[in-house]
Amino acid sequence: MNSIRTVGVVGLGLIGGSIAKGLKARLPGIRIIAYDNARESLEVGLASELIDEAADSLDVLTDGCDLICVCVPVQQIEKCMPALEGFKGWVTDVGSVKAPIVKTAERLWGELPANWVPGHPIAGSEQHSVHAADADLFVNHKVILTPLEITAPTAVKMVREFWNLLEAEVIVMGVAHHDDILAQTSHLPHLLAYTLVDVLAGFGDEREVFDYAAGGFRDFSRIAASDPQMWHDIFITNRGALLKLLQTFMGALQETADLIEEGDSEALLSRLERAKQARDYFSELQSKL
Amino acid sequence: MNSIRTVGVVGLGLIGGSIAKGLKARLPGIRIIAYDNARESLEVGLASELIDEAADSLDVLTDGCDLICVCVPVQQIEKCMPALEGFKGWVTDVGSVKAPIVKTAERLWGELPANWVPGHPIAGSEQHSVHAADADLFVNHKVILTPLEITAPTAVKMVREFWNLLEAEVIVMGVAHHDDILAQTSHLPHLLAYTLVDVLAGFGDEREVFDYAAGGFRDFSRIAASDPQMWHDIFITNRGALLKLLQTFMGALQETADLIEEGDSEALLSRLERAKQARDYFSELQSKL
Repeated sequence: MNSIRTVGVVGLGLIGGSIAKGLKARLPGIRIIAYDNARESLEVGLASELIDEAADSLDVLTDGCDLICVCVPVQQIEKCMPALEGFKGWVTDVGSVKAPIVKTAERLWGELPANWVPGHPIAGSEQHSVHAADADLFVNHKVILTPLEITAPTAVKMVREFWNLLEAEVIVMGVAHHDDILAQTSHLPHLLAYTLVDVLAGFGDEREVFDYAAGGFRDFSRIAASDPQMWHDIFITNRGALLKLLQTFMGALQETADLIEEGDSEALLSRLERAKQARDYFSELQSKL
Repeated sequence: MNSIRTVGVVGLGLIGGSIAKGLKARLPGIRIIAYDNARESLEVGLASELIDEAADSLDVLTDGCDLICVCVPVQQIEKCMPALEGFKGWVTDVGSVKAPIVKTAERLWGELPANWVPGHPIAGSEQHSVHAADADLFVNHKVILTPLEITAPTAVKMVREFWNLLEAEVIVMGVAHHDDILAQTSHLPHLLAYTLVDVLAGFGDEREVFDYAAGGFRDFSRIAASDPQMWHDIFITNRGALLKLLQTFMGALQETADLIEEGDSEALLSRLERAKQARDYFSELQSKL
């Protein structure tokens, strides 16, 4: 990170704000320029000294930054890519789905530029504004980088150092594998949670449903408090992996429903025990860390 | 509770153990007799002074207790009901589904005895053994009682006092309404969580799925750590309400999948926003409490 003096942050929400705050807390001399459609977020960033400069356009960032981190939802990343054309520094992004970024680059420029390292920090919260910025949001959290063959090794090295500085653990994997694993661990659970809350709220006895929401529904409804625009983008841009997985899931759900309907206790119990064993195996792994 | 000197606990797990511990902490003179198929649980109860006596059969409880609380999974409640025939004290249970208990009573005796107040504390944890017994497990938690018309008002009064002593908030509603609301807030979410964990674990890259389980899946997998036998009983005994709800849910899930597949951004976003609004409305209610 010695060669990086000015970092550009596109989108000053929870992630962008936490990157800015985390860098400021760890690199006293760092200069941060942010761009955001919402002028109010930039004002908050300036007032709380998360950023040094509020840019009026992305040109200010491409002109003055050594590294740019794009921290907006996936479909907005695609929209701001043309403005980053020709930028000579390092670029990374935090999009929850990686294939669309590569595809957009191919459409725009034939291929992803060698200085762009697609990334995805596995961190977040229900809060999604700059007000919730947290200098330690990424500490001990995983950040997945999905460089292509064409990506410059020095770019990967630099972006890895960037995240290491924020005390995150960097992991490298392929674009398709990332999108598939995230569909499993994050996108499908969110789709289920949003749908459940919507269905139950639609029954009209909403207040009562929430009143008795011990365990179970409480966790689901917390998940459904996430930013709708971000999840819209994720569901749409990762629809290939997500819908395939959803069909598998709905098949399994119907099978379980059939076991319940038929009163097949043995098969039902063995399914529930299998799930519990998987979960227990995981808990054991965690306790060894 | 002045007239109650000896309480019988059937099933010394998390709930039974917590009731015993909670009573001991609040009523110094109380005597507690427990019965459990697992002798080991009773030994733990004796050694940690949660109970005064480990019974060899339910007869010991019906002979010597003023109030019996049945703290086993729903299908086991049904199995031990014959042994409680003729008991003259107060009876309550903690079954997660209420209709089967009423139905079993009708089959056995023509109707639920007037001294039996069906109940359900909305409390629990992933832990489900007596080792996790907590004297304050029910403090500020809701307990739903579902007395019938035939239930003696003095029985309701006594069971209400029993739970109030443990500092729970008692609510009264009908049997069918209870089973329907719980299908929504608890049974369906658990069914989804168990199925998701089972599907993902079945893909073979289990370790990796858990590795990246920030948000979303982590909450789901925690839910799936609950006791399989207990959830088997709940799913089977509440299948009417549960499967009806599941069909509605799967319909909504398919609709959302269609919106994603068609790329209908406007309709998808409005669905996600509707769910978030329901959740935000709930958070606001909670913050006012």
